[in-house]
Amino acid sequence: MGVRRRLVMWAAVSAWACSVAPSMAQAAAGHNLMPVPASVTFDAGGLAIDAHFGVKFDGYRDARLERAAERLLQRITRLTGVIIVRSGNVPALTIHCGRGPVGVQKAVEDESYSLRVTAEGARLDAPTVYGVLRGLETLAQLVEPGPTGFAVRAATISDQPRFPWRGLLIDVCRHWMPVEVIKRNLDAMAAVKLNVLHWHLSEDQGFRVESKVHPLLHQKGSDGLYYTQEQVRDVVQYAADRGIRVVPEFDMPAHTLSWLVGYPSLSAGKGPFEIARTWGVFDPVLDPTNERVYAFLNGFFGEMAALFPDAYFHIGGDEVNGKQWDATPAIVAYRKRRGMATNDDLQAYFNKRVAALLKAHGKMVVGWDEVLHKDLPKNAVVQSWRGQKSLADAAGAGFKGILSNGYYLDYMWPAARHYAVDPMGKDAANLPDEAKARILGGEACMWAEWVTPETIDSRIWPRTAAIAERYWSPATVTDPVDMYQRLDVVSQRLDATGIIHRVNYEPMLERLTGNRSIDALQAIVDLVEPVKDYNRGRRVKVTSLTPLNRLVDAARPESDEARTFARMVDTLLADPAKLAGREAISETLRQWQEQAAAVQPVLNGSLLQDAAPLVQNLSAASALGLKALDALQKKTPLTLTAEETDALTRASAPVAEVLLMVAPPVKKLVDAAK
Amino acid sequence: MGVRRRLVMWAAVSAWACSVAPSMAQAAAGHNLMPVPASVTFDAGGLAIDAHFGVKFDGYRDARLERAAERLLQRITRLTGVIIVRSGNVPALTIHCGRGPVGVQKAVEDESYSLRVTAEGARLDAPTVYGVLRGLETLAQLVEPGPTGFAVRAATISDQPRFPWRGLLIDVCRHWMPVEVIKRNLDAMAAVKLNVLHWHLSEDQGFRVESKVHPLLHQKGSDGLYYTQEQVRDVVQYAADRGIRVVPEFDMPAHTLSWLVGYPSLSAGKGPFEIARTWGVFDPVLDPTNERVYAFLNGFFGEMAALFPDAYFHIGGDEVNGKQWDATPAIVAYRKRRGMATNDDLQAYFNKRVAALLKAHGKMVVGWDEVLHKDLPKNAVVQSWRGQKSLADAAGAGFKGILSNGYYLDYMWPAARHYAVDPMGKDAANLPDEAKARILGGEACMWAEWVTPETIDSRIWPRTAAIAERYWSPATVTDPVDMYQRLDVVSQRLDATGIIHRVNYEPMLERLTGNRSIDALQAIVDLVEPVKDYNRGRRVKVTSLTPLNRLVDAARPESDEARTFARMVDTLLADPAKLAGREAISETLRQWQEQAAAVQPVLNGSLLQDAAPLVQNLSAASALGLKALDALQKKTPLTLTAEETDALTRASAPVAEVLLMVAPPVKKLVDAAK
Repeated sequence: MGVRRRLVMWAAVSAWACSVAPSMAQAAAGHNLMPVPASVTFDAGGLAIDAHFGVKFDGYRDARLERAAERLLQRITRLTGVIIVRSGNVPALTIHCGRGPVGVQKAVEDESYSLRVTAEGARLDAPTVYGVLRGLETLAQLVEPGPTGFAVRAATISDQPRFPWRGLLIDVCRHWMPVEVIKRNLDAMAAVKLNVLHWHLSEDQGFRVESKVHPLLHQKGSDGLYYTQEQVRDVVQYAADRGIRVVPEFDMPAHTLSWLVGYPSLSAGKGPFEIARTWGVFDPVLDPTNERVYAFLNGFFGEMAALFPDAYFHIGGDEVNGKQWDATPAIVAYRKRRGMATNDDLQAYFNKRVAALLKAHGKMVVGWDEVLHKDLPKNAVVQSWRGQKSLADAAGAGFKGILSNGYYLDYMWPAARHYAVDPMGKDAANLPDEAKARILGGEACMWAEWVTPETIDSRIWPRTAAIAERYWSPATVTDPVDMYQRLDVVSQRLDATGIIHRVNYEPMLERLTGNRSIDALQAIVDLVEPVKDYNRGRRVKVTSLTPLNRLVDAARPESDEARTFARMVDTLLADPAKLAGREAISETLRQWQEQAAAVQPVLNGSLLQDAAPLVQNLSAASALGLKALDALQKKTPLTLTAEETDALTRASAPVAEVLLMVAPPVKKLVDAAK
Repeated sequence: MGVRRRLVMWAAVSAWACSVAPSMAQAAAGHNLMPVPASVTFDAGGLAIDAHFGVKFDGYRDARLERAAERLLQRITRLTGVIIVRSGNVPALTIHCGRGPVGVQKAVEDESYSLRVTAEGARLDAPTVYGVLRGLETLAQLVEPGPTGFAVRAATISDQPRFPWRGLLIDVCRHWMPVEVIKRNLDAMAAVKLNVLHWHLSEDQGFRVESKVHPLLHQKGSDGLYYTQEQVRDVVQYAADRGIRVVPEFDMPAHTLSWLVGYPSLSAGKGPFEIARTWGVFDPVLDPTNERVYAFLNGFFGEMAALFPDAYFHIGGDEVNGKQWDATPAIVAYRKRRGMATNDDLQAYFNKRVAALLKAHGKMVVGWDEVLHKDLPKNAVVQSWRGQKSLADAAGAGFKGILSNGYYLDYMWPAARHYAVDPMGKDAANLPDEAKARILGGEACMWAEWVTPETIDSRIWPRTAAIAERYWSPATVTDPVDMYQRLDVVSQRLDATGIIHRVNYEPMLERLTGNRSIDALQAIVDLVEPVKDYNRGRRVKVTSLTPLNRLVDAARPESDEARTFARMVDTLLADPAKLAGREAISETLRQWQEQAAAVQPVLNGSLLQDAAPLVQNLSAASALGLKALDALQKKTPLTLTAEETDALTRASAPVAEVLLMVAPPVKKLVDAAK
């Protein structure tokens, strides 16, 4: 039948929300800019958008800027429904760009801009094209509907980023991501002023770029799933158009199993090798004592240096377990002969050789924090994934550094937790100023063990918008409540960039259930989150070829509903005499009971049937929550049977790799009622 | 806050639905194929889909077939989440194609195929590439989830189309549609086996193709919104890859205002001319007595004939009002001198000249039914828009014909109404067999006065899938209940083609309200439909530059919820003693009252504020419906106050260009209770 009905008895909850938090409308009366500009003031009114909305340049202009202006018009059409004519239009926005770019985009560029919007027109001033690109995104975020039409909100903005290196790593190896995935994410990155795509292109599980110099790399190492060089050039150009650098990563000497399938002789250990189908740290590793390895890499670097124009080249360098080096007498002898005490030194030797090769091809290296070593060239950038201390160590030792620890999107943390991590925080806070200046920024990391082209957007967005704000906005912008209010709107508006983080949620549930009615199911999936950190895949054995098409894959990393419910419970318990919001909580719990009852037939015999215990848990937790509320109101202590205590414990445990996020606040209620 | 909650108290309604109609699950136990194949039997089980799903050809193969196989794999990934490796995979599907194509796709091709799927593998046999393309779409429709994963359902199918010409007209003139809109709709067309894109490329409101021969056509006639020739070639190739012909339409001699902006001397009347900004029939028209018009057209046809490979070229020919011909003494004199009694004869003369020019460029003509005239070349195709009689007249007079009357998507009719129209119905039914054989099929028409790139998909789909079934499936396939059950699933699955008919519904409501919470709003918009036929734009003056971003633009052409409610009311009233489903109806009415109360603040001060009376109407109608139910149960006749009677009448009247579709069934309830 497919008849869908949403009953909005959320009125009670909404009333509660209004009494304790700024409403959506109030948030809009604030603003929906993300990242928050360095300085912004709003005026009344705005610049009306109509079919004749035109853009004029009165300073430097080039094809990139013209394409950016054209994209702005397309974005405005998506945001407003206004089809803008392309001839005979009236200049509404004047862009003044001070000067053209010098060479390819560098790691540090002036990205400042100022923007003034009045009812008469908008003016964007920036010294560079990068500032213009950032300012155009701010302008797009100022587009809002009013009673008669859409307008650009009147404002005066002066803005520049806090950090010059604001990145997103996308792993395309653990699961393959076609070009369209990368492009739509580049659009979303640009929308929140990120400027580095860290493209993780080789791994044990796949080698993802066509190599004409060493064709067995992609022919044997990719399952036929790789980017042609033409596609790479296209993506690099697409990124450059948006002021985004592309830093390619070819991880070595470990994480190179896919290289060794076609070229086993590069290995320290013996072949033959196969593409890895599971996750983790594998023993196979390049042989750093083999001169033919460097000759091979030199040819490869030459080819890739021409393909990727950025000045930096990421050589990985993480997770070398050294087992195959230790197991090879010739390598051990080589190491000792050269006076290297440890395998770390051997890796440093390898890195030094690699850095020298890359330097000859005009590149500087980036590496994960394991590459930190006195022999590393001082122009290298160290990317800290193991902790904020290693970032401070690197900066203290004279290297440039970027932070990724705390920004792992695959950990499925809430946005606020990432948002609280500051590249200048913890150990970095105590560095002298000249060391602090070497901290260039950070990168959110989307490792791809548990994502597919279908689900990756919902893991990256909207949380990465909050991380982007951390990298761009003043350090003082830290209020998570304000952040969430804006994030909710920004997330909706990111639809216009083409990412599918929101629009695919319902279709995915529909197809997993064989196109059944998903209303009750969705209401329940709204309350769960995937298990956190590295807890996925522990109970069920999966490989990289196992489809990711279960409830955990549809579930979003962060449940807004659970967060709201937890706040309602906290508010209620803050004053046991008043029990504020008791009715809304009780209504919500009753709804969950109903939904749990309604969803069972949808799960039966479907791909989601392993989630059945989850539904029972929700049902049991809701019943206990209602009991607790009753006890709290009657002021009679609640006693639980052993069975009830078990049920409550069970409700907080993972089922089908998801967590029922409303179970802990229900437990809080029950504990308070005891 | 953006916290969204769907309360599913739809349990009562679901229970009702199960008692009177096959449930969704039962429909799935039938099948979800659309169009229904000529012959299909299902077996138990299916062909499991995993990462190694491979395709093998054992007959004719070419690049087009290989691309089609690759697209199938991509589609399977979208439908299942299974990432399929592209090397080392195991043949799961074997395709046997009998022979390669001869020249470009013709109006009549063998599109038959047979498909057999077992647990061991699938085999697709077809004499031509067109049959292979159609069969691959059927295979994609057989992909279904089970408890352990996705599989292609086991089946034996033998299939061919009823009509060879199965088209969709897309008007890109009244509102501009970028290439991406056309491409995603071509994918959706292919999914339901349509094979003609009728591309309506010139109109009073715009000339949409780059002309190098007469560049002022697009330069002055398009507002800068036109397809480059490279884009046209790309679209034609994209369509050909999917077995879809592209028939271009350049409407003449009327509907040519956009031509005359750049070339006023082609006109019968005096210039200067401007692009039309409103809708309707305009006086400006080409001068059929001016030899330079034919010279101009000859150059233009030569250019376009090279760009569009199809054997047919659509010359429009509709709605010539003749005023400027009558007002020009030289034209009147010319007509009389040549012995032409009427302007129809003069237009026939023009058509004959045009057809001769096109013939020299290797093209046959298609025209709207006004072109029907004894002088029209017998190889022409007549497209009937004014009625089924004109189709029969054309076929009876020896012309080929296609039907569009009854398939105008801009009329906002329910799918079942289009579905009931048969090209062989009405007057055509009485034709002799050899005349019937000249009826080639039909075309759904998406005229673009009231659609934009954002809304066009939701006007075309899913209704066009039902029309496509009319053109493809046996004439005996006519049950609307069965059609709607399958259409609901097919509509969901069309998401995988990239069309946005479903996924943009909520985002559009969100942006129109300035990203407020839309739950209650959506529940109400679910109950309305845009006004029908040509009733839009009568109260409010709009131009082609007015943005289409109001409630009526977000509302879908057909309310599933209202259709279901109407059926519930019919069921209840069928037996006043039993009043079956009374509680479900009463619960539904109460929900509407709540939603109406909740939505008012969302409308206030928003772009949707003119819909406020609609909400009052829903509230009033719901209250009256509850009263009526009460009276029916108590068996006490209901008396309405004059005010209540007025309210009920008002509820069925258009508000903000939409109709509250649940008002008529409520009125039925009330009338029954009187």
